Amino acid sequence: MKRIFEIDPWHVTTHEFNPANKRLQESITAIGNDYMGVRGNFEEGYSGDYLQGTYLAGVWFPDKTRVGWWKNGYPEYFGKSLNAPNFLGLKLKVNGVAIDLAKVEFSDFYLSLDMHQGLLTRSFIYQADDTQVKFTFNRFLSNSIKEAALIQVKAEVLAGKAKIEFTSTLDGNVVNEDSNYDEHFWDALAEDADARTIQLRTKPNPYKVPQFTVLLQSGLRLDGQKYQGKVETKSGFLAETGEFELSQGESKTIEKDIVVVTSRDVPADEQAAASQKLLDQVQAKSFAENLADHTKIWEKRWESSDVTIEGDDAAQQGIRFNILQLFMTYYGEDKRLNVGPKGFTGEKYGGATYWDTEAYIVPMYLAVAPASVTRALLEYRHDQLPGAYHNAKQQGLDGALFPMVTFNGIECHNEWEITFEEIHRNGDIPFAIYQYTHYTGDTSYIEDEGMDVMVGTARFWASRVHYSKHAGKYMIHGVTGPNEYENNVNNNWFTNTMAAWVLSWTLERLPLATKEAQARVNVSDEEKAKWQDIIDNMYYPEDQELGIFLQQDGFLDKDVRPVSEIPEGQRPINQHWSWDKILRSPFIKQADVLQGIYFFNDRFTMEQKERNFDFYEPLTVHESSLSPSIHAILAAELGKQEKAVELYERTARLDLDNYNNDTVDGLHITSMTGGWLAIVQGFAGMRYDHDHLSFKPFVPDKWNSYSFKLNYRDRIIAVEVVKGEVKIKLIKGQALAVQVFDETIHLEEGEEKCLKA
Amino acid sequence: MKRIFEIDPWHVTTHEFNPANKRLQESITAIGNDYMGVRGNFEEGYSGDYLQGTYLAGVWFPDKTRVGWWKNGYPEYFGKSLNAPNFLGLKLKVNGVAIDLAKVEFSDFYLSLDMHQGLLTRSFIYQADDTQVKFTFNRFLSNSIKEAALIQVKAEVLAGKAKIEFTSTLDGNVVNEDSNYDEHFWDALAEDADARTIQLRTKPNPYKVPQFTVLLQSGLRLDGQKYQGKVETKSGFLAETGEFELSQGESKTIEKDIVVVTSRDVPADEQAAASQKLLDQVQAKSFAENLADHTKIWEKRWESSDVTIEGDDAAQQGIRFNILQLFMTYYGEDKRLNVGPKGFTGEKYGGATYWDTEAYIVPMYLAVAPASVTRALLEYRHDQLPGAYHNAKQQGLDGALFPMVTFNGIECHNEWEITFEEIHRNGDIPFAIYQYTHYTGDTSYIEDEGMDVMVGTARFWASRVHYSKHAGKYMIHGVTGPNEYENNVNNNWFTNTMAAWVLSWTLERLPLATKEAQARVNVSDEEKAKWQDIIDNMYYPEDQELGIFLQQDGFLDKDVRPVSEIPEGQRPINQHWSWDKILRSPFIKQADVLQGIYFFNDRFTMEQKERNFDFYEPLTVHESSLSPSIHAILAAELGKQEKAVELYERTARLDLDNYNNDTVDGLHITSMTGGWLAIVQGFAGMRYDHDHLSFKPFVPDKWNSYSFKLNYRDRIIAVEVVKGEVKIKLIKGQALAVQVFDETIHLEEGEEKCLKA
Repeated sequence: MKRIFEIDPWHVTTHEFNPANKRLQESITAIGNDYMGVRGNFEEGYSGDYLQGTYLAGVWFPDKTRVGWWKNGYPEYFGKSLNAPNFLGLKLKVNGVAIDLAKVEFSDFYLSLDMHQGLLTRSFIYQADDTQVKFTFNRFLSNSIKEAALIQVKAEVLAGKAKIEFTSTLDGNVVNEDSNYDEHFWDALAEDADARTIQLRTKPNPYKVPQFTVLLQSGLRLDGQKYQGKVETKSGFLAETGEFELSQGESKTIEKDIVVVTSRDVPADEQAAASQKLLDQVQAKSFAENLADHTKIWEKRWESSDVTIEGDDAAQQGIRFNILQLFMTYYGEDKRLNVGPKGFTGEKYGGATYWDTEAYIVPMYLAVAPASVTRALLEYRHDQLPGAYHNAKQQGLDGALFPMVTFNGIECHNEWEITFEEIHRNGDIPFAIYQYTHYTGDTSYIEDEGMDVMVGTARFWASRVHYSKHAGKYMIHGVTGPNEYENNVNNNWFTNTMAAWVLSWTLERLPLATKEAQARVNVSDEEKAKWQDIIDNMYYPEDQELGIFLQQDGFLDKDVRPVSEIPEGQRPINQHWSWDKILRSPFIKQADVLQGIYFFNDRFTMEQKERNFDFYEPLTVHESSLSPSIHAILAAELGKQEKAVELYERTARLDLDNYNNDTVDGLHITSMTGGWLAIVQGFAGMRYDHDHLSFKPFVPDKWNSYSFKLNYRDRIIAVEVVKGEVKIKLIKGQALAVQVFDETIHLEEGEEKCLKA
Repeated sequence: MKRIFEIDPWHVTTHEFNPANKRLQESITAIGNDYMGVRGNFEEGYSGDYLQGTYLAGVWFPDKTRVGWWKNGYPEYFGKSLNAPNFLGLKLKVNGVAIDLAKVEFSDFYLSLDMHQGLLTRSFIYQADDTQVKFTFNRFLSNSIKEAALIQVKAEVLAGKAKIEFTSTLDGNVVNEDSNYDEHFWDALAEDADARTIQLRTKPNPYKVPQFTVLLQSGLRLDGQKYQGKVETKSGFLAETGEFELSQGESKTIEKDIVVVTSRDVPADEQAAASQKLLDQVQAKSFAENLADHTKIWEKRWESSDVTIEGDDAAQQGIRFNILQLFMTYYGEDKRLNVGPKGFTGEKYGGATYWDTEAYIVPMYLAVAPASVTRALLEYRHDQLPGAYHNAKQQGLDGALFPMVTFNGIECHNEWEITFEEIHRNGDIPFAIYQYTHYTGDTSYIEDEGMDVMVGTARFWASRVHYSKHAGKYMIHGVTGPNEYENNVNNNWFTNTMAAWVLSWTLERLPLATKEAQARVNVSDEEKAKWQDIIDNMYYPEDQELGIFLQQDGFLDKDVRPVSEIPEGQRPINQHWSWDKILRSPFIKQADVLQGIYFFNDRFTMEQKERNFDFYEPLTVHESSLSPSIHAILAAELGKQEKAVELYERTARLDLDNYNNDTVDGLHITSMTGGWLAIVQGFAGMRYDHDHLSFKPFVPDKWNSYSFKLNYRDRIIAVEVVKGEVKIKLIKGQALAVQVFDETIHLEEGEEKCLKA
C-alpha cells in the first residue's frame, strides 16, 4: 500500500513531487472523456522516468504474436492499446532555461484532480537566482466537444524579470513501451505548418485489420487572443514557438486548444476540414466557457450517480474516484467501444474488452446509467458473434466462443492457459443478458439478438464438455477459472456451473423468442435433448464432509493453509513467487467458487454461503482487482461487517492506495465498479431477482451514513442509509413496490419512506 | 510418411530432385564431424526455397526471451543454436549462365550420402543449347582435422565448349530463420583478402554469456594445384573468383579447402595463425588422401558399432543412418559438448542439451563407445551444477534443478509448463549415473562427483513435494511428465516414481561415497529422515480395478478412446488440433508410465507390464520421436513381435521416412538411439541389472538375422541372432558369464558360443 494523494471528498490532491512516484502519480491523474485520454504527463516535458501515454478510443494495432513456442490455434496477433500521438507538449523556457522538474529548482508544487469538474490542475514556483515564476496548468478533455483537449498555462512572475519562451508540439513519434523492439506503429502522412496539423496512419498489417488515420490540430491563444507563433515541422511532428517578457507582478496565460479526429469517424481526406471546423467551434468560446460546458455534463452525471458517505472521507474519495474514472472511460455513447481494463491510463494488457465488462461493469452501469448504455454493451458482443464463431472453429469446437481479449471479436491474447482455457467468459457474457433482462424488465433483447448469443454459446458448451464413462458424468477438463492462479484444471466448479446454466437458460428462453430468432438459431429437438442430458448429468466437484464446493478436482489435495501464513515481504505473491509455486499453492487470485455463489445468490442457503466463504476467503490473496468486491458483498450478506468494510476499502481505494503495487502501469478501470457494488449490493443488500427490488441495508460502524441513487425500470430511486434508519424515495417514475428487510413498501412518485433498520 | 531416398544398406541415395522436398533432402543429407556440421545445401547456390544451415558445436547465442506474458522465474534468454557463417559457397557459371537448379535445365541428378565413408556426393548434367557439362560434387567434414571441410567439384564437358567461372565464398551475413526480426547475431570483425579469411564475433549480450569469435579461411586448388583467384571482400564476406575453358571431353576439378577455428579453442588474436597452420596441414595432402584419413576413422567406428540386419534393407539402412548421424554429432571428444536434439542439421528447438541425452543417448553410447564417452556426458552435468542450483533458486526451491534446455546449465527455455514443470529431468539425469554405474561397474563416479549431483537433485525433490494432510501422502503437483500432451497435472506417476527413486538411491549410495564427497554434501540425519519419510509415504496414482498405474490424477475421467478412432487426416494431431484439444484428449505424445516401467524394469511383473502396455499403447500417438523405441522394447519383452517391429521401423526410419512430417526442420538426432535400443534391448532382450549381462533374443519374422557388438566392462562382445540360434562371442577382454534365456554361459576371450533360441 502506498498513498501519495491527500484525502478529500471531491479532490485528489498532492503538494509533493517525488520523482520515484512519477508513474504512479501519472496513472492517478490520468483524465479522459470516453473518446480519448491522457496520463498525467507534464506539458512542459520531463527528463526523468515517466510513462508517456495518449490513447484514442478504438484506435489500436494488431501486433504480430510472438511467443516462446507456437501452438495451433494461437491468435495471429496481439491487439495493442496503441500509444497515440502526443498533443500535450507545451515546453517552457524562462530566461533561456528549460523548465524541467527533474532539473530545475522549484517550490510549492501542487497537483489536483477536481473530480466534480473533471479538471486537472497543477502549479509550482520556478526558482532561479533572482527570478521566481509561478506556473499554473489547467487541463481537461471536453465532454461537450469530444475531439477537443484544452490546456491553459498561466505564467506569473513573482520576482525578477522573465523572458518566457514556449513551444507547443504535436508529436507522432511515439512508441509503446511494451513494444518488443521499439517499433513505431505510426507512419507520418503529412504536416501542415499553416493549419498546425499533423496526420498519421497506423502501419499496414497482414491481418485485414483496418489501418487508422488520425489528424491532430492545435491552436494557441495568449491571454485569450488567438496567437500565431513560428512553426517548424518534421516528419510526424509540429512545433509552434512564441515568447514574451514579464516583470514582477505581471502574468500571462498561454492556451493550447487541440482537436483530434480519427478515421473511425471522419475519412482521412476529410479530416483537415472537419478538424478546422471543430477547432473553430472550440475557439469561438473562451477557456472558461468551454470548461463550463464540460462541467455541466459532469454535474448531470454526478446528479444521478453520486454516492455519498458521511464519516469516512477516504471511503468517500474512493467511490467518487472510481465513478469519475469509469465515466471518463465509457459512458455508452459509442456502441463500437467497450471498457478496457486500463481505460485511457496505460498501455498494459492490450485489447479493449474482457469479461470484466459483463461481470463487473454491467451490474453497476445498469443502475447508474440509462438502460441503453448496458444494452449497447450487450449489442457490442452480438455484433462480434462472427469473431466468436471464428474463435470456436480455431479450437475445433462448435458454436461461438467469445474472446478473452479483443478489439473486434477475434481473440488476441496468446497465453494458451488463458486463450484456450479461461472459457468461463462464455458463461459470463450470456449471464449479463440475464442480468439486463431481470434488472430492466426489457425482454426484447433476449427474445431476439440475445438468443443468437445464447444459442451460439450453448452450442460451444455442448461441444466442449465430454462424457466420462468412468464417472458417468459430463465434465469440463482443461480450463482456467476466474482464479487464474490455477491453470489447466479439471472441473472448475464455477465453469461447470456457468456452462450448465447457459444450456438451461437457453432452453428456458428459447420458446419465448421471436419466430425470426427461432428460425435463425434453428435448434433441433435432438440438440435440445442433448443439452438437457448435459444439464441433468453435469459433474460438480464438492466435498460433502466440509460442505463446500471444490474449486476444481483435487483442490483438497493441496497443502491447504491460510494467506496469513505467507511469510512477510512475499506479497503480492505474483511479484515474488515463480509461476509454478503460485500454481501449486492453495492461494486464490480472485473469487472463483464465491463468484459463482454471487452470480446465483438465491440457489444457496446461508449455511452453504457461510461454509464456502469461511473456507475460501482465508485462501484468497485478492491479487486480481476484480476479487475483493465480490467477497465484500458476500461478507456483508453474511453479517461479517468488518470484513466487508476491509474489502470495500481494498476495492474502492485499490489505485489511490496502490494496493497491488501495479498502479504505475495504469488504473484498474474495469474493477472500479467494485466499490459501488460493495456499497449497493453489499452494505445496502440490493437484489433484483424475480422482478423484485429489495434491500437489507446496514451502515458500517465507522461510517455515519451513505446514500446512492438507482436507475431502475425507468424510475430514479434514492436510498439513504443512516444508523438505524433507511430512507427510500421514488424521485421519478411510476409507483413501485420495494422490499426492505422483510417489509414490502409501496412508493408513489416523489414519495419518501423511512424505515427503522 | 514420405520416403524420398532409395533403400540401400550403406547409402542414402536419390536420383530425383523435387524442389518441394528441398528442405527435407537437406536435412537428410546433413553431415557433421562432431565439431561442426552443415545441412545439405547446394554449393553453387539455389534461388528456390531452402534452409541455410551451418553449425559450430558449442557456438550459440543468448537471445532475449520474448513471450506473450512474462512470469516470475522465466529465464532471461533463449539459447539459440546459431546459424554460423556459410563456408560452402562455390558459385558456378557456364558460358555466363549461373548454375541454379531452380532455373537452369539439367538431367541425371544424383545425390548420395555414403554412410560408410561419411561422404556426400552429388552430380547432374547441365544442359544448354549445344553445351552439356556434368558437375560432380564431393563434400566431407574431416574426422582427422576437425576444423577442416573439404569440397571437390569436377566439371566435365560432355558436349560443346564451356567457359566455366567459379566463385568461392565465405559468408558471415547469415541469419537464423527463427529470429524474430531477421536480426543478425554476428558482427564482422575483419576480412583478409591475402589470407582468404573472414573473422566474426557474436553480438554482445547482457547475460554474461561469452561472445564467440570465429575465423574462416579457404584455399582453392585446380586439378590438385593450389590456385589463387581474384579476391573481393565486403563486410563479413569474401569471394574468390577464377575461370577456365573446357572443350568436349575435357574436365577439371576445383577443390575448396576450408578451415574454421573458434574462440572456444583459439583466442581471437591467434586464430589467423592457427587457421593457416591447419590449412597448410590440409593442403599438404590431396583431397583423396584427406578423405582416406577421414574414412579410416569411420571404418574404426563402424567396426565396433555396426549393426547388421539381413533380410530387410530398409531396417538395415535405418539403423546405419542413425548411428552415422549420432557419431557425426557427438563422439565424446570434447567434454564441454553434448548432443543437441537437431545436432548440426537444423536450428530448431534451441539449446544444446535436453534430458534426451541421459534417457536415450546414454544407454546406447554405454555400449557402442568407450565408457569415457558416457562419463564425459555425466561430468558435463556435474560441471553445470552451479547453473542447476541457480535454476532451483529462481523457482524458490532448494537443491539443484537441472535445466530442460541449456547450453551452460542455466535454463534457457521459456514455456512455463516445460521450464517450471517438466521436472522429471531431475530424476532422469541421476538415473543416467545409475545406468553408468551398473553397466560399466565403475563406482568411482557415484562415490565422488556423482554424489554431488545426487544430493543436489534429492534436495530439490524434498522441497518440491508437499504433504497432503487430506490424503496423508506426499504429492507432487503441477508437473508435466514425459508426455508433454498433458501440462500442469498432479501426481504424474513417472515423476513421483523418479523423485522417490532419487531420494532412495541417494540414501543407499551416500554411505559408500568418499569422505570428501560426504563432507561436501553434508546431509544431516534430519534430512535423511525426511527423505525416508517421503519415500515411505509417496503417493502413486493407480487404478486397482484395471490394474494399471495412472499417468496422473484423474486420467480415467477423460474420454478414453484409442488412437485408431482419430479421424483420418488429423494426424499428427499436433499439426491439426489446437493445444486445448490435445490436452483434453486421452492421447499420449510419448511413453510416460511405460517410460517408468522401462527404467525400473525388474520392479514389475509381466502381468503388470502387459496390463499397462495394453492400456497405454493404444492411446499413444508417438508424436515425440523419443516414444516408439521404449514401446518397441516393452512390446518385444511381452512377445508382441509384430508391434515391436512396427515401432522399430518408426524409430529407426523416423527421418528417412519423415514419419512426423517435421524432418524439414532437421533430423531428430537424440532419438536416433531408438533403433539401436529397440534391437539390442528389445529384440535381443539385453539387460544389465545387478552386474549381470543377459539376453532373450528373437529374430523378427521379416528379418533373417541381425548382429551387433557391445562394449561391456572393457570387453567387446559380438552377438549374432539368426532364426532359432544365437551366437555370442567374446572378441576381446576377460572371461565373462552371460545369461541367454535361462542359461548362463561362460565365455573366454575369443570364444564363441552358439545356442538354440
